[in-house]
Amino acid sequence: MVEPANTVGIPLNHTALLKDELDIVIPTIRNLDFLEMWRPFLQPYHLIIVQDGDPSKTIAVPEGFDYELYNRNDINRILGPKASCISFKDSACRCFGYMVSKKKYIFTIDDDCFVAKDPSGKAVNALEQHIKNLLCPSSPFFFNTLYDPYREGADFVRGYPFSLREGVSTAVSHGLWLNIPDYDAPTQLVKPKERNTRYVDAVMTIPKGTLFPMCGMNLAFDRDLIGPAMYFGLMGDGQPIGRYDDMWAGWCVKVICDHLGLGVKTGLPYIYHSKASNPFVNLKKEYKGIFWQEDIIPFFQSAKLSKEAVTVQQCYIELSKMVKEKLSAIDPYFDKLADAMVTWIEAWDELNPATKA
Amino acid sequence: MVEPANTVGIPLNHTALLKDELDIVIPTIRNLDFLEMWRPFLQPYHLIIVQDGDPSKTIAVPEGFDYELYNRNDINRILGPKASCISFKDSACRCFGYMVSKKKYIFTIDDDCFVAKDPSGKAVNALEQHIKNLLCPSSPFFFNTLYDPYREGADFVRGYPFSLREGVSTAVSHGLWLNIPDYDAPTQLVKPKERNTRYVDAVMTIPKGTLFPMCGMNLAFDRDLIGPAMYFGLMGDGQPIGRYDDMWAGWCVKVICDHLGLGVKTGLPYIYHSKASNPFVNLKKEYKGIFWQEDIIPFFQSAKLSKEAVTVQQCYIELSKMVKEKLSAIDPYFDKLADAMVTWIEAWDELNPATKA
Repeated sequence: MVEPANTVGIPLNHTALLKDELDIVIPTIRNLDFLEMWRPFLQPYHLIIVQDGDPSKTIAVPEGFDYELYNRNDINRILGPKASCISFKDSACRCFGYMVSKKKYIFTIDDDCFVAKDPSGKAVNALEQHIKNLLCPSSPFFFNTLYDPYREGADFVRGYPFSLREGVSTAVSHGLWLNIPDYDAPTQLVKPKERNTRYVDAVMTIPKGTLFPMCGMNLAFDRDLIGPAMYFGLMGDGQPIGRYDDMWAGWCVKVICDHLGLGVKTGLPYIYHSKASNPFVNLKKEYKGIFWQEDIIPFFQSAKLSKEAVTVQQCYIELSKMVKEKLSAIDPYFDKLADAMVTWIEAWDELNPATKA
Repeated sequence: MVEPANTVGIPLNHTALLKDELDIVIPTIRNLDFLEMWRPFLQPYHLIIVQDGDPSKTIAVPEGFDYELYNRNDINRILGPKASCISFKDSACRCFGYMVSKKKYIFTIDDDCFVAKDPSGKAVNALEQHIKNLLCPSSPFFFNTLYDPYREGADFVRGYPFSLREGVSTAVSHGLWLNIPDYDAPTQLVKPKERNTRYVDAVMTIPKGTLFPMCGMNLAFDRDLIGPAMYFGLMGDGQPIGRYDDMWAGWCVKVICDHLGLGVKTGLPYIYHSKASNPFVNLKKEYKGIFWQEDIIPFFQSAKLSKEAVTVQQCYIELSKMVKEKLSAIDPYFDKLADAMVTWIEAWDELNPATKA
């Protein structure tokens, strides 16, 4: 039985890496007691809390954490009519936090994620590993059989082209989960007792041209490199679909990273995912996505961006046009989503005006 | 410090999987004392020993192993003029063993590879893991973040298209190495003391469209599915290059697997690689490959086989023509290699006549 780590007695991390360059974004509808366990690792950082649901509710944040909190009223006030691109009653609302941040890096985590233990029993400082992943290069053009070649004790193996060993900048670090795996509703229903107990001690680059299912539970990224593509779509209240927010972002992000020559890593760090969500509720949210994705994924697999698209924003606008053109036939929802993608970029640029070169 | 496992006292494996459908191919120039350690796991299987170098030398095989042995005289006698495609004074000669086998599966291992220990201290039955890898499907079209979805305790994660969950047949299982990593000469020279001590508990499919450096030290494959592409090229005696035999095979195999919709897996099992080869000798063998691969890899990355190529042999002959056309400009060696690729297929077909459907 895998259990979360006990972090009581771990001294506060006073040499927190990138303390002034990273924000932690947490979407929530409840008091953030889960932060107690993360205190040794996360207290030095600034939090951006995106409160979902009823804005009149008060969310308690454990003492000692430095944070700003936005509820729906704040989002509406700050974005005006453009607030329509931010989902309500769905954790997709977290992407508002990416937009209001002014930092270079973002770490986002769900409030049911606890500190995992590595096989030696040591508490895993997830954020520290994400930062390591983001600060060292990726190798998307050729597979390295010893996984991350930049890690201590590893390197590029025989037969790896020397011209590719410098790698490319890493835009995304996708972390994994012990205990409750991130399964869809049908798999949850079929395997209600399955728990992930396998700690795979690896970080790897997802090769260029390969899509992956990006989970938003334990995710970090370089906002300067890829931020405007980290839009979690239209989910939840008033939308025909849920639980595809992070998937949507992952498909868009990977296509754009491949186009711009940026890297996406997956693997370490693990968090301890405590609570299986209700598979019946999930099925209701997911079922359209389950058949839509059969068309959406081939669409993204064949999506080709033009040479003219050299910024993330330009790439994202091109992608929104393709979504409108090619996916609207599946459902009118995609027409609305394509429009929201444009609104998102407009709102992003409004809150993040380009600095003069 | 990683040490090889102690296999003394492990009972002989009497329920050896696929005992009558698998041959173990070992290229060697010395007595096969290393088999003593493998006895509990490998003794039930048939060995094909390919003796390299001086054919008058006698190779001792530990008692109790069932084997056939071929030296250079045997190769020349069996293949006649076509023996020119089999390398001499290089472990590339091992591919002769693939050709004379009549079994469905091949496991090939170097004679300096010992039994590894897993993190719990248990001896790793490498062959058993290879067989598991080969018997369960691969998932080359989309990345699964929890690694091999067919493994116990794992599955496809949320967002993985259901239409792709059946997977495809696995043609190749590429195993890894603890202790001495498979580095090229420059990396060996720069990091003489680096040892691989990281046991990564994962098997994964290498995505479609992604090439990898295939090492021949600890490798298994389905001979029926991909055998004719497992040609280890012209290396060693009389050739301008060495230590690229397995790389060459890996590039060809991956392009053909991608074309035919077959899977290639890498990861577990580990063997314990005991002896670092001499980096100075290696540099002499490798140096041409080190700059040639800068052109060869883009060549394979862009190689497109025709729809008409539906058998491995047809794919391989097409590839040989492309090699002649596109790589001969690098060095006349590739002209010779392209011819040898054709000779290899002719010899393969001669020894393995097609059975009537």
